[in-house]
Amino acid sequence: MITLHHLEYSQSFRVLWMLEELGIEYALKLYDRDKKTMLAPDDYKAVSPLGTAPVITDGNVTLAETSAILDYVLDQHPNAEMRPNAGAPNRAQYLFWFHASQGSLMPIALMSALFRIMEKRVPFFLKPMIKMISAGANQGFINPRLNALLTQAESDLATRDFFAGDHVTLADILMSYPMEGLYQRGALEDLPNCTAWVERIQARDAFKIATEKDGRESSILPL
Amino acid sequence: MITLHHLEYSQSFRVLWMLEELGIEYALKLYDRDKKTMLAPDDYKAVSPLGTAPVITDGNVTLAETSAILDYVLDQHPNAEMRPNAGAPNRAQYLFWFHASQGSLMPIALMSALFRIMEKRVPFFLKPMIKMISAGANQGFINPRLNALLTQAESDLATRDFFAGDHVTLADILMSYPMEGLYQRGALEDLPNCTAWVERIQARDAFKIATEKDGRESSILPL
Repeated sequence: MITLHHLEYSQSFRVLWMLEELGIEYALKLYDRDKKTMLAPDDYKAVSPLGTAPVITDGNVTLAETSAILDYVLDQHPNAEMRPNAGAPNRAQYLFWFHASQGSLMPIALMSALFRIMEKRVPFFLKPMIKMISAGANQGFINPRLNALLTQAESDLATRDFFAGDHVTLADILMSYPMEGLYQRGALEDLPNCTAWVERIQARDAFKIATEKDGRESSILPL
Repeated sequence: MITLHHLEYSQSFRVLWMLEELGIEYALKLYDRDKKTMLAPDDYKAVSPLGTAPVITDGNVTLAETSAILDYVLDQHPNAEMRPNAGAPNRAQYLFWFHASQGSLMPIALMSALFRIMEKRVPFFLKPMIKMISAGANQGFINPRLNALLTQAESDLATRDFFAGDHVTLADILMSYPMEGLYQRGALEDLPNCTAWVERIQARDAFKIATEKDGRESSILPL
């Protein structure tokens, strides 16, 4: 049986949601971050070889990296319909969004968050500087890439309810984390299809049960 | 037949290398960046919906995102042994490195590169500031994550020649780009197994043919 080591406010909420979508038996271990440093506690670090979240254990296997975990779990449930097979008509759409989530959207979201954190944390006399640098990075690098991806998402979601068609796949599971972050900070306001998608996944029973097990209103820490 | 739209100095070298490893027929279109701005030319942008590299076309399908392309091409060559099947003994190792490359290593490498670019490009009176900020981000965020991943890679490559075992898989193809970048800037000097792996892939016939077709000494633009 798979054990999900679930660290609060981390990317591991997505694995929890997937496990609930699958409706399979699994063990759940919850870990809270240190209230002051927001770092993972020692017992989490002991099980997570790289100190990252999420991590699952399954017999002798310890596996990190969200996408790898999703693929690994789906390997054990080949009939789950959450991963279109090679040759399926929606395979290319699926592969694009499944991989673009971690490969393109998350790095941009991470960089954007890093600049927002720096703006908050630097001493006050550095704030004008960091704001200038941050504005430059946003204008020259972050925003063009983010907008291109969101425009594509908005257009794809105009013709289908989920990223790879009419039902939830691992592409939706992966996309949920960066998209919820964007939703919370108002970045999807002009994108009705993206907004509807976020609200659609949040309304699912499996998502609600995962949220309940997570024990907080949202898995996204506001930045 | 698949057409690879290959933009110089971009992530698309990896697709070129994979196609050569597979030994299949494919069409190759080469695109040079604008000498001044280093941006992709207009005819590349016309084929790449998001303006990113790489992109392949295959009949009606246009597909971006490196990992998605690798999976898509392998779908058409299920006997190629470059993607261990569900349940294979090296499946978890494979999934980890295949996904960690774009999901963890590349975002860190990208952030690190962004700070190096900013250090170079900001007006001279801002340099001390940006160096201070860059040092903070490196110490607090980038280096711990990079070191954890490289330590894991060094340890895994102590017992096997490639990331998922004794032969090249898509995990090696994906890892080549960030690892070659680290190799070129001396970041692998204390990691003999990682260094040997980089030299091992560079010595392969398929890699050399890809390099020849790419038409430059290395696909990595020094930053």
